[in-house]
Amino acid sequence: MKKRIDPGTYACPAPAWCVGTYDEEGRANIMTVGWGGICCSVPPHLTVSVRKVTHSYAALMHRKCYTVSIPSVTYLKEADYFGIVSGKDTDKFTVSGLTATRSELVDAPYVEEFPLIFECEVRHVVEIGGHVQFVGEIVGIKADETVLNAKGLPAIDKVNPFVYAPTSREYWSLQEVVGQGFSSGRVLIKEV
Amino acid sequence: MKKRIDPGTYACPAPAWCVGTYDEEGRANIMTVGWGGICCSVPPHLTVSVRKVTHSYAALMHRKCYTVSIPSVTYLKEADYFGIVSGKDTDKFTVSGLTATRSELVDAPYVEEFPLIFECEVRHVVEIGGHVQFVGEIVGIKADETVLNAKGLPAIDKVNPFVYAPTSREYWSLQEVVGQGFSSGRVLIKEV
Repeated sequence: MKKRIDPGTYACPAPAWCVGTYDEEGRANIMTVGWGGICCSVPPHLTVSVRKVTHSYAALMHRKCYTVSIPSVTYLKEADYFGIVSGKDTDKFTVSGLTATRSELVDAPYVEEFPLIFECEVRHVVEIGGHVQFVGEIVGIKADETVLNAKGLPAIDKVNPFVYAPTSREYWSLQEVVGQGFSSGRVLIKEV
Repeated sequence: MKKRIDPGTYACPAPAWCVGTYDEEGRANIMTVGWGGICCSVPPHLTVSVRKVTHSYAALMHRKCYTVSIPSVTYLKEADYFGIVSGKDTDKFTVSGLTATRSELVDAPYVEEFPLIFECEVRHVVEIGGHVQFVGEIVGIKADETVLNAKGLPAIDKVNPFVYAPTSREYWSLQEVVGQGFSSGRVLIKEV
């Protein structure tokens, strides 16, 4: 017997992704979001949701592109800071001491020090409620060589991202591999 | 200097969520997805993306509602199985030995044995590419008493979910709290 709970954003895990944009005046802005995820494989897309009152919302609507910089645990403090203050009146790059690098693919900046970067062009804008969802096609990816696996692709243990737990507002690190996708469940497939 | 990588679904972390639906004939179906996330706080919404060829897609379009059952690491094998085979020709509940319970709020079943359940009504259907995204309002939540914190809300360490790493198709467990949202970054805010 399960207990009923009032609707809320308690689904887990959520990512902690840093969304980079240029505002109307060309200033680099960065904002951390927990509401987002991959939403399509071919072509690859990912979403981020922001509220209309944010500085990032105006920039996203104006430029119709963004980056997602994925922070490693090393940069947790900076990533959290990016989600607390507004770019309207603060240059978060200067305050944090991190570097805004201009993407050569999309009209948006990314965080140079973060290991894994996605460059996105907005394809859909979905008005949901308090948040507006931006569905962006991933047109480019950049990664530090140090986070690549033998196939030249970004390895999660090397990126060392953290997870956001909405209920407690905690960030959690990853521990270990506990299974293999499209494989661990094969034991349940009955042989004919 | 970062290395350029061809666009792909390498953003991490991704969730592993089990989407419950009834098909046109009323059969309970369940499918694990990694493409999804929370997308709005007020009212709370979450998204799941599926391909049009899936049995779940037809059910989602027909019933316009779904559940998300979040598996704990204990049920990794079953959750992975739900993502391998199709409900078109297999009753995944029967094969896995898990229980399909009818939600009394939405016209969809959930996995009784999983600790945390979200009951959703589809508000938007977004055709992106190979995947179609379903944006659902969370109209109800159910949780096992054993996963609730002192405030009666689901605690991530008690739910014990796992994360999907798209690049390597691995599932990862969570380790420990490494920071506090809207707090860890406050040290960077300059006092005036």
